[in-house]
Amino acid sequence: MRVRNKPWAKDYLADHPDQMVETPEALMGNWQSRFPKEQPLSVEIGTGKGQFIVEMARQHPDRNFIGIEIQMSVIAAALKKVVASELTNIQMVRTDGEAINTFFAKGEVSNIYLNFSDPWPKSRHAKRRLTSPVFLAHYADVLAKGGQIQFKTDNRGLFEYSLWSLNNFPMIFDGVWLDLHAATDGVEDIQTEYEQKFSAKGPIYQVIAHFPTED
Amino acid sequence: MRVRNKPWAKDYLADHPDQMVETPEALMGNWQSRFPKEQPLSVEIGTGKGQFIVEMARQHPDRNFIGIEIQMSVIAAALKKVVASELTNIQMVRTDGEAINTFFAKGEVSNIYLNFSDPWPKSRHAKRRLTSPVFLAHYADVLAKGGQIQFKTDNRGLFEYSLWSLNNFPMIFDGVWLDLHAATDGVEDIQTEYEQKFSAKGPIYQVIAHFPTED
Ligand SMILES: C[S@@+](CC[C@H](N)C(=O)[O-])C[C@H]1O[C@@H](n2cnc3c(N)ncnc32)[C@H](O)[C@@H]1O
Ligand SMILES: C[S@@+](CC[C@H](N)C(=O)[O-])C[C@H]1O[C@@H](n2cnc3c(N)ncnc32)[C@H](O)[C@@H]1O
Repeated sequence: MRVRNKPWAKDYLADHPDQMVETPEALMGNWQSRFPKEQPLSVEIGTGKGQFIVEMARQHPDRNFIGIEIQMSVIAAALKKVVASELTNIQMVRTDGEAINTFFAKGEVSNIYLNFSDPWPKSRHAKRRLTSPVFLAHYADVLAKGGQIQFKTDNRGLFEYSLWSLNNFPMIFDGVWLDLHAATDGVEDIQTEYEQKFSAKGPIYQVIAHFPTED
Repeated sequence: MRVRNKPWAKDYLADHPDQMVETPEALMGNWQSRFPKEQPLSVEIGTGKGQFIVEMARQHPDRNFIGIEIQMSVIAAALKKVVASELTNIQMVRTDGEAINTFFAKGEVSNIYLNFSDPWPKSRHAKRRLTSPVFLAHYADVLAKGGQIQFKTDNRGLFEYSLWSLNNFPMIFDGVWLDLHAATDGVEDIQTEYEQKFSAKGPIYQVIAHFPTED
């Protein structure tokens, strides 16, 4: 996501310590302390401008949400929406989602959302895709037993790769949608900024999957 | 596939014992005896009117092919193409592909093709889909170690189900294509009658997968 550098972004983040987590490592195993209520933790990686997570948090007051976004000026736009929402069940972290296992404890996360992740179309960049084995291994480290990953995208190449990658990891598919907006099975779909922008150009794909449990 | 009943079909099949196998169970473990050369065995289930298997056999003289089709008048149309081709590396069987493990021995089949299988869209008919667990179990019984299933279809619902079903069985994906005709990776694509008829209406999906080996 390319955005103009926003000089105000850094100060704006610093001015909102109640919604922004500065040192996520310090909260490992203790994220519930950031919320008024202890309840299942949903994490979105690559939150972008925040429309999805804010609307999810509004519709699910019985869950706590954490939005992870690496770009300063992008997360600042998301933070604005969080602040305006006055919701207390969202926390934001500006960091690389790949490091998720360095700041969540084993089983601390109930489920993970990946929405319209950067496609990294070149094979030599495959490792950077949010559905590559190294990312999946870190998700497996932090997800509770049976915890799902829900991934949607409009990018055909990334989705083909992701079905292959999740299957080979291995992960177990709970559902696959090859045209989410045409789905008639009452599936929940809160749209993201990217989704609204690009869904006219072709289908939105989605997969929901979980890791096998050892026993 | 609906076709007019062809009164000549039965006689035509009976008139071609060199290409038609009447009692497949009798050949279990011994299919190579039907071909001039002993070479890897590829099986197509739901062969339809035969364009795919005849063209495959022509392009791959180093493999033997068996086409399985349940409908008399449909297989008669395929048999006509086989006879006209003068190829000696194709045999046809009129039977239900679900029974595949009653006429092939363990490991006798090198790979299986499923092309534009009947979608059976109603959930209560899911068991009849050629990618349902009961069919997969029978394929696993007869496939050699690492032997692949290659499945293509234009039917979105059937493909969503099949990705889920193969993954859960479990099978390991070797590749997934969400728009086969747009693929640029040099993938082989011999078109079937259905494919030529329906591909203008939307994408052709394909998955190639194999069963895990025990050791
Ligand atoms: C294509 S945008 C999609 C944004 C949003 N999810 C949507 O659907 O509108 C991808 C976002 O992921 C962020 N991102 C990419 N890699 C990341 C990573 N490793 N950790 C955290 N965020 C990342 C990018 O900065 C960008 O904002
Ligand atoms: C939709 S047609 C596709 C035919 C051909 N593969 C094509 O792509 O043009 C499906 C075919 O599978 C056959 N078929 C369906 N179930 C079968 C089964 N259990 N065993 C063998 N053939 C079957 C049908 O009779 C029909 O001819």
